[in-house]
Amino acid sequence: MVDILHRVGIKTPSVDNVYQAITTIEGLSNWWTIDTKGDGAIGGVLEFRFPAGGFDMKVLELEPGKRVLWQVVDGPAEWIDTTVSWELKQSDEYVIVLFKHLGWTEPVEFMHHCSTKWATFLMSLKALVETGQGSPDPDSVRIGDWH
Amino acid sequence: MVDILHRVGIKTPSVDNVYQAITTIEGLSNWWTIDTKGDGAIGGVLEFRFPAGGFDMKVLELEPGKRVLWQVVDGPAEWIDTTVSWELKQSDEYVIVLFKHLGWTEPVEFMHHCSTKWATFLMSLKALVETGQGSPDPDSVRIGDWH
Repeated sequence: MVDILHRVGIKTPSVDNVYQAITTIEGLSNWWTIDTKGDGAIGGVLEFRFPAGGFDMKVLELEPGKRVLWQVVDGPAEWIDTTVSWELKQSDEYVIVLFKHLGWTEPVEFMHHCSTKWATFLMSLKALVETGQGSPDPDSVRIGDWH
Repeated sequence: MVDILHRVGIKTPSVDNVYQAITTIEGLSNWWTIDTKGDGAIGGVLEFRFPAGGFDMKVLELEPGKRVLWQVVDGPAEWIDTTVSWELKQSDEYVIVLFKHLGWTEPVEFMHHCSTKWATFLMSLKALVETGQGSPDPDSVRIGDWH
Protein backbone atom coordinates (compact mmCIF):
# COMPACT_ATOMS: atom_id res chain seq x y z
CA MET A 1 0.00 0.00 0.00
CA VAL A 2 1.24 3.47 -0.85
CA ASP A 3 -0.10 6.84 0.21
CA ILE A 4 -0.25 10.43 -0.95
CA LEU A 5 0.56 12.87 1.86
CA HIS A 6 0.33 16.65 1.92
CA ARG A 7 0.40 19.54 4.39
CA VAL A 8 -0.65 23.13 3.87
CA GLY A 9 -1.05 26.02 6.31
CA ILE A 10 -4.05 28.25 5.73
CA LYS A 11 -3.95 31.71 7.27
CA THR A 12 -7.35 31.99 8.90
CA PRO A 13 -8.50 32.58 12.48
CA SER A 14 -10.75 29.53 12.81
CA VAL A 15 -10.57 25.87 11.87
CA ASP A 16 -14.29 26.12 11.16
CA ASN A 17 -13.52 28.12 8.00
CA VAL A 18 -11.56 25.18 6.63
CA TYR A 19 -13.93 22.55 8.01
CA GLN A 20 -16.86 24.21 6.20
CA ALA A 21 -14.87 24.25 2.95
CA ILE A 22 -14.25 20.49 3.06
CA THR A 23 -17.62 19.31 4.39
CA THR A 24 -20.28 21.37 2.59
CA ILE A 25 -21.37 21.19 -1.03
CA GLU A 26 -20.85 24.94 -1.39
CA GLY A 27 -17.36 24.80 0.09
CA LEU A 28 -16.20 21.78 -1.90
CA SER A 29 -17.58 23.19 -5.16
CA ASN A 30 -15.55 26.36 -4.69
CA TRP A 31 -12.11 24.73 -4.62
CA TRP A 32 -12.35 21.17 -6.03
CA THR A 33 -15.01 20.92 -8.69
CA ILE A 34 -18.03 23.09 -9.34
CA ASP A 35 -19.97 19.89 -10.11
CA THR A 36 -20.27 18.63 -6.51
CA LYS A 37 -23.48 17.07 -5.25
CA GLY A 38 -24.70 14.58 -2.69
CA ASP A 39 -25.01 14.15 1.04
CA GLY A 40 -22.14 15.24 3.28
CA ALA A 41 -23.50 13.69 6.50
CA ILE A 42 -21.94 10.56 8.00
CA GLY A 43 -22.96 7.62 5.83
CA GLY A 44 -23.86 9.93 2.95
CA VAL A 45 -22.14 9.94 -0.43
CA LEU A 46 -20.55 13.00 -2.01
CA GLU A 47 -20.42 13.02 -5.82
CA PHE A 48 -17.57 14.90 -7.44
CA ARG A 49 -17.65 15.24 -11.24
CA PHE A 50 -14.94 16.50 -13.59
CA PRO A 51 -14.83 16.80 -17.38
CA ALA A 52 -12.95 13.48 -17.53
CA GLY A 53 -14.92 11.50 -14.92
CA GLY A 54 -15.52 11.61 -11.22
CA PHE A 55 -15.42 10.15 -7.74
CA ASP A 56 -18.06 9.13 -5.22
CA MET A 57 -16.93 9.42 -1.62
CA LYS A 58 -18.78 7.88 1.31
CA VAL A 59 -18.43 9.98 4.45
CA LEU A 60 -17.08 7.68 7.17
CA GLU A 61 -16.09 10.16 9.89
CA LEU A 62 -16.84 13.78 10.72
CA GLU A 63 -15.34 15.42 13.77
CA PRO A 64 -16.17 19.13 13.52
CA GLY A 65 -13.10 21.32 13.27
CA LYS A 66 -10.79 18.31 13.59
CA ARG A 67 -11.15 15.43 11.23
CA VAL A 68 -12.93 14.13 8.12
CA LEU A 69 -12.64 10.69 6.54
CA TRP A 70 -14.01 9.61 3.16
CA GLN A 71 -13.95 6.26 1.41
CA VAL A 72 -13.94 6.12 -2.37
CA VAL A 73 -16.92 3.99 -3.43
CA ASP A 74 -16.92 4.80 -7.16
CA GLY A 75 -14.43 6.26 -9.60
CA PRO A 76 -11.26 5.12 -11.39
CA ALA A 77 -10.31 1.53 -10.54
CA GLU A 78 -7.14 2.66 -8.74
CA TRP A 79 -9.20 4.86 -6.41
CA ILE A 80 -11.82 2.33 -5.32
CA ASP A 81 -11.61 1.62 -1.57
CA THR A 82 -8.83 4.11 -1.02
CA THR A 83 -9.57 6.60 1.75
CA VAL A 84 -9.09 10.35 1.99
CA SER A 85 -8.30 11.70 5.43
CA TRP A 86 -8.30 15.32 6.56
CA GLU A 87 -6.89 16.47 9.90
CA LEU A 88 -7.13 20.09 10.99
CA LYS A 89 -5.42 21.96 13.79
CA GLN A 90 -4.85 25.59 14.69
CA SER A 91 -1.23 26.72 14.98
CA ASP A 92 -0.98 30.42 15.78
CA GLU A 93 -2.44 32.30 12.82
CA TYR A 94 -2.56 29.22 10.57
CA VAL A 95 -4.92 26.28 10.29
CA ILE A 96 -2.74 23.30 9.44
CA VAL A 97 -4.26 20.75 7.07
CA LEU A 98 -2.78 17.26 7.11
CA PHE A 99 -4.11 15.50 4.05
CA LYS A 100 -3.73 11.79 3.27
CA HIS A 101 -5.02 9.79 0.32
CA LEU A 102 -4.40 6.32 1.70
CA GLY A 103 -4.31 2.78 0.45
CA TRP A 104 -3.23 2.85 -3.19
CA THR A 105 -2.34 -0.69 -4.20
CA GLU A 106 0.60 0.27 -6.43
CA PRO A 107 2.62 3.43 -7.08
CA VAL A 108 1.31 3.68 -10.65
CA GLU A 109 1.97 6.70 -12.86
CA PHE A 110 -1.62 7.85 -12.29
CA MET A 111 -0.88 8.01 -8.55
CA HIS A 112 2.10 10.31 -9.22
CA HIS A 113 -0.27 12.53 -11.23
CA CYS A 114 -2.94 12.54 -8.51
CA SER A 115 -0.33 13.43 -5.89
CA THR A 116 0.68 16.58 -7.77
CA LYS A 117 -2.91 17.42 -8.67
CA TRP A 118 -4.01 17.10 -5.01
CA ALA A 119 -1.30 19.62 -4.09
CA THR A 120 -2.68 22.14 -6.56
CA PHE A 121 -6.23 21.55 -5.29
CA LEU A 122 -5.02 22.07 -1.70
CA MET A 123 -3.54 25.38 -2.85
CA SER A 124 -6.96 26.13 -4.33
CA LEU A 125 -8.55 25.36 -0.94
CA LYS A 126 -5.99 27.63 0.73
CA ALA A 127 -6.75 30.45 -1.72
CA LEU A 128 -10.50 30.00 -1.24
CA VAL A 129 -10.30 30.30 2.54
CA GLU A 130 -7.74 33.13 2.52
CA THR A 131 -9.13 35.22 -0.34
CA GLY A 132 -12.64 33.91 -1.12
CA GLN A 133 -11.51 32.68 -4.55
CA GLY A 134 -10.43 29.11 -5.31
CA SER A 135 -9.70 27.44 -8.67
CA PRO A 136 -12.09 24.49 -8.92
CA ASP A 137 -12.52 22.33 -11.99
CA PRO A 138 -13.12 22.88 -14.84
CA ASP A 139 -10.77 25.84 -14.30
CA SER A 140 -8.22 24.13 -12.08
CA VAL A 141 -4.48 24.56 -12.56
CA ARG A 142 -3.31 22.38 -15.44
CA ILE A 143 -0.31 20.22 -14.48
CA GLY A 144 0.22 18.32 -17.74
CA ASP A 145 -1.25 16.16 -20.46
CA TRP A 146 -3.60 14.41 -18.04
CA HIS A 147 -4.97 17.80 -16.94
CA MET B 1 10.04 3.42 3.97
CA VAL B 2 7.69 5.98 2.45
CA ASP B 3 8.04 7.98 -0.73
CA ILE B 4 6.92 11.24 -2.27
CA LEU B 5 5.75 10.78 -5.87
CA HIS B 6 4.79 13.39 -8.45
CA ARG B 7 4.11 13.68 -12.17
CA VAL B 8 3.93 16.79 -14.32
CA GLY B 9 3.71 17.26 -18.06
CA ILE B 10 5.76 20.10 -19.48
CA LYS B 11 4.78 21.39 -22.90
CA THR B 12 8.09 21.56 -24.72
CA PRO B 13 9.44 19.94 -27.89
CA SER B 14 12.54 18.37 -26.38
CA VAL B 15 13.40 16.44 -23.24
CA ASP B 16 16.74 18.25 -23.34
CA ASN B 17 15.01 21.47 -22.24
CA VAL B 18 13.90 19.76 -19.03
CA TYR B 19 17.13 17.80 -18.61
CA GLN B 20 19.14 21.04 -18.74
CA ALA B 21 16.85 22.60 -16.13
CA ILE B 22 17.46 19.78 -13.63
CA THR B 23 21.17 19.16 -14.24
CA THR B 24 22.81 22.57 -14.62
CA ILE B 25 23.45 25.20 -11.96
CA GLU B 26 21.74 27.82 -14.12
CA GLY B 27 18.67 25.67 -14.68
CA LEU B 28 18.28 24.57 -11.06
CA SER B 29 18.74 28.12 -9.78
CA ASN B 30 15.89 29.32 -11.97
CA TRP B 31 13.18 27.08 -10.53
CA TRP B 32 14.33 25.68 -7.16
CA THR B 33 16.60 28.10 -5.35
CA ILE B 34 18.68 30.96 -6.67
CA ASP B 35 21.41 29.90 -4.23
CA THR B 36 22.53 26.75 -6.07
CA LYS B 37 26.21 25.86 -6.36
CA GLY B 38 28.44 22.85 -6.74
CA ASP B 39 29.31 20.18 -9.24
CA GLY B 40 26.56 18.54 -11.27
CA ALA B 41 28.72 15.77 -12.77
CA ILE B 42 28.41 12.16 -11.61
CA GLY B 43 30.01 11.91 -8.17
CA GLY B 44 29.80 15.68 -7.71
CA VAL B 45 27.76 17.40 -5.01
CA LEU B 46 25.11 20.03 -5.68
CA GLU B 47 24.51 22.52 -2.87
CA PHE B 48 21.03 24.01 -2.58
CA ARG B 49 20.53 26.77 -0.02
CA PHE B 50 17.31 28.34 1.22
CA PRO B 51 16.65 31.03 3.83
CA ALA B 52 15.86 28.27 6.36
CA GLY B 53 18.67 25.84 5.52
CA GLY B 54 19.64 23.64 2.64
CA PHE B 55 20.44 20.30 1.06
CA ASP B 56 23.56 18.76 -0.44
CA MET B 57 22.86 16.21 -3.16
CA LYS B 58 25.44 13.81 -4.52
CA VAL B 59 24.84 13.03 -8.18
CA LEU B 60 24.61 9.24 -8.50
CA GLU B 61 23.26 8.81 -12.04
CA LEU B 62 22.94 10.96 -15.14
CA GLU B 63 21.39 9.57 -18.30
CA PRO B 64 20.99 12.52 -20.69
CA GLY B 65 17.38 13.22 -21.55
CA LYS B 66 16.18 10.25 -19.51
CA ARG B 67 17.13 9.96 -15.90
CA VAL B 68 18.82 11.70 -12.96
CA LEU B 69 19.43 10.32 -9.48
CA TRP B 70 20.63 12.27 -6.46
CA GLN B 71 21.41 11.13 -2.92
CA VAL B 72 20.97 13.54 -0.05
CA VAL B 73 24.30 13.72 1.78
CA ASP B 74 23.59 16.75 3.99
CA GLY B 75 20.47 18.58 5.13
CA PRO B 76 17.63 18.00 7.60
CA ALA B 77 17.97 14.70 9.49
CA GLU B 78 14.86 13.28 7.80
CA TRP B 79 16.39 13.88 4.36
CA ILE B 80 19.80 12.25 4.91
CA ASP B 81 20.27 9.22 2.65
CA THR B 82 16.96 9.68 0.93
CA THR B 83 17.23 9.76 -2.87
CA VAL B 84 15.63 12.01 -5.47
CA SER B 85 14.89 10.38 -8.81
CA TRP B 86 13.90 12.10 -12.04
CA GLU B 87 12.63 10.22 -15.09
CA LEU B 88 11.86 12.03 -18.34
CA LYS B 89 10.02 10.90 -21.44
CA GLN B 90 8.45 12.60 -24.44
CA SER B 91 4.73 12.03 -24.93
CA ASP B 92 3.43 13.93 -27.96
CA GLU B 93 3.87 17.63 -27.20
CA TYR B 94 4.66 17.08 -23.51
CA VAL B 95 7.76 16.00 -21.65
CA ILE B 96 6.53 13.86 -18.77
CA VAL B 97 8.46 14.18 -15.52
CA LEU B 98 8.16 11.32 -13.05
CA PHE B 99 9.59 12.58 -9.79
CA LYS B 100 10.29 10.46 -6.71
CA HIS B 101 11.76 11.45 -3.36
CA LEU B 102 12.43 7.98 -2.01
CA GLY B 103 13.29 6.39 1.28
CA TRP B 104 11.80 8.51 4.06
CA THR B 105 11.95 6.49 7.26
CA GLU B 106 8.61 7.70 8.62
CA PRO B 107 5.62 9.66 7.25
CA VAL B 108 6.34 12.60 9.55
CA GLU B 109 4.50 15.91 9.27
CA PHE B 110 7.61 17.43 7.64
CA MET B 111 7.33 14.84 4.87
CA HIS B 112 3.72 15.91 4.21
CA HIS B 113 5.00 19.48 3.91
CA CYS B 114 7.85 18.53 1.59
CA SER B 115 5.45 16.58 -0.63
CA THR B 116 3.28 19.66 -1.21
CA LYS B 117 6.29 21.94 -1.55
CA TRP B 118 7.87 19.64 -4.17
CA ALA B 119 4.64 19.90 -6.18
CA THR B 120 4.86 23.68 -6.21
CA PHE B 121 8.55 23.54 -7.19
CA LEU B 122 7.69 21.15 -10.03
CA MET B 123 5.11 23.68 -11.19
CA SER B 124 7.92 26.26 -11.03
CA LEU B 125 10.08 23.98 -13.20
CA LYS B 126 7.17 23.61 -15.64
CA ALA B 127 6.71 27.37 -15.80
CA LEU B 128 10.44 27.92 -16.31
CA VAL B 129 10.63 25.56 -19.27
CA GLU B 130 7.33 26.69 -20.82
CA THR B 131 7.62 30.44 -20.27
CA GLY B 132 11.23 31.16 -19.25
CA GLN B 133 10.13 32.27 -15.78
CA GLY B 134 10.14 30.01 -12.71
CA SER B 135 9.55 30.88 -9.04
CA PRO B 136 12.71 29.79 -7.20
CA ASP B 137 13.39 30.48 -3.55
CA PRO B 138 13.44 32.94 -1.88
CA ASP B 139 10.37 33.86 -3.95
CA SER B 140 8.78 30.41 -4.14
CA VAL B 141 5.06 29.88 -3.60
CA ARG B 142 4.28 29.95 0.10
CA ILE B 143 2.25 26.91 1.20
CA GLY B 144 1.94 27.61 4.92
CA ASP B 145 3.65 28.40 8.20
CA TRP B 146 6.71 26.31 7.29
CA HIS B 147 7.10 28.35 4.07
